[in-house]
Amino acid sequence: MPMRRIHLIVEYDGTNYAGWQRQLNALAVQQVLEEALERLTGARVVVHGASRTDAGVHALGQSCHFDTESRIPADKFSYAVNTLLPPDIRVRASREVPPDFHARFSTVGKRYRYLFYDDRHAGALNRFTHAHSIYPLEDRRMQAEADALIGAHDFAAFAASGSVVKDTVRTIWRADVTRSGHDVKLIVEGSGFLYNMVRIIAGTLRDIGSGKLAPGALRRAIDTGDRLDLGVTAPAHGLTLMEVFYDLPEAAGRMNE
Amino acid sequence: MPMRRIHLIVEYDGTNYAGWQRQLNALAVQQVLEEALERLTGARVVVHGASRTDAGVHALGQSCHFDTESRIPADKFSYAVNTLLPPDIRVRASREVPPDFHARFSTVGKRYRYLFYDDRHAGALNRFTHAHSIYPLEDRRMQAEADALIGAHDFAAFAASGSVVKDTVRTIWRADVTRSGHDVKLIVEGSGFLYNMVRIIAGTLRDIGSGKLAPGALRRAIDTGDRLDLGVTAPAHGLTLMEVFYDLPEAAGRMNE
Repeated sequence: MPMRRIHLIVEYDGTNYAGWQRQLNALAVQQVLEEALERLTGARVVVHGASRTDAGVHALGQSCHFDTESRIPADKFSYAVNTLLPPDIRVRASREVPPDFHARFSTVGKRYRYLFYDDRHAGALNRFTHAHSIYPLEDRRMQAEADALIGAHDFAAFAASGSVVKDTVRTIWRADVTRSGHDVKLIVEGSGFLYNMVRIIAGTLRDIGSGKLAPGALRRAIDTGDRLDLGVTAPAHGLTLMEVFYDLPEAAGRMNE
Repeated sequence: MPMRRIHLIVEYDGTNYAGWQRQLNALAVQQVLEEALERLTGARVVVHGASRTDAGVHALGQSCHFDTESRIPADKFSYAVNTLLPPDIRVRASREVPPDFHARFSTVGKRYRYLFYDDRHAGALNRFTHAHSIYPLEDRRMQAEADALIGAHDFAAFAASGSVVKDTVRTIWRADVTRSGHDVKLIVEGSGFLYNMVRIIAGTLRDIGSGKLAPGALRRAIDTGDRLDLGVTAPAHGLTLMEVFYDLPEAAGRMNE
């Protein structure tokens, strides 16, 4: 068989993993997926992921690709590999893509979700997916603040220290804060995100929502480039990678709505 | 201190418990809660729960009471006992109630939620809260079927075999089926439910939604009293006890919306 490039959409519960990227001394999602694909195809497999999610971060729509000479039909990879994966990792869809497609470098945007739960007591059922706030969160004030993110800005202040990226300009076209009961949901969509950027945005919005930080911090930080204008990074477990966008014909429609 | 009766609203993730009721050879939520309250009050505590949820079943609003001579203010029990409980059990609220209040016998109604996820592949993040259906579920057909539940009926057919309850008449005043993406949610509210009744209703609606069972099964089973007219009992982990209702003045408002 000729070599084919296969694109996968992957969902995982990040609770029990050291993040997406393969590591020496801890189990990462990439390693589990590569080992399952190697058992399936009988050959060495390298999986290229769109986003290196941190330990504890979840994904409903991680995107990755690998090359294979296997004869398995492209759309059947999802079914086949799921029989070899643990229940906290599921391949949602698989398809063949052109050989110049790259899950990471072909990306034109991503959508992330951050979930808060504001109540006097922490929740039990949502303890792995929602960051708890004992302070009530003013979601309208958070939305007004989040509006400052929209557009193309230099987000230098929003990168975790130690980041080595040169170009820190990113475009954000969606930043929505909505409430349902005690759940406060942030959805951000943009061209790309610096390391920890969504968790820094979420933590700043949380601090503004609880009154700990004065409104205007996001705009100020965009102007000054100073990380100290922003709030404390929100915990990993509230974050979920929802979808990765490409300029590919979407014959199959969006794979994760 | 005189003896006081304290009412608790309890949330738990039922995944790692053998259900609510204390057992000899497996860990139940009741036992964990009693042991925490005994450490807190320094005296033996017996907790009376409103509903004996099965292994794997969750609760956002389990209701229970206990008697104590402790000096801890009634509304502070929730904070104090939460420091002694594992993170998969949380007391959401506590208050003093009259000595003739009984969490189980004073009940005038309950609300349950059942969650399905219909997609080609099972989910990873929702694997402990949603029952997976590989068949698409026709939620409008399920809603039309669920309408037959409304009213006072003899639900003899809806009790798990081995049930010893004599009076099998119950009143259901709400049975709503709604969809959001691949999530199909059933909410049922009624005066009371026989053992496994909600899971039998959920399983029947699932089988009607997938086309496995012909519409009309619920009404037929109400008429015939025959368990065989109904679908297979839906799995425990899709079920959550949402709220228990009482004829008490709701000074504190609903404790679980």
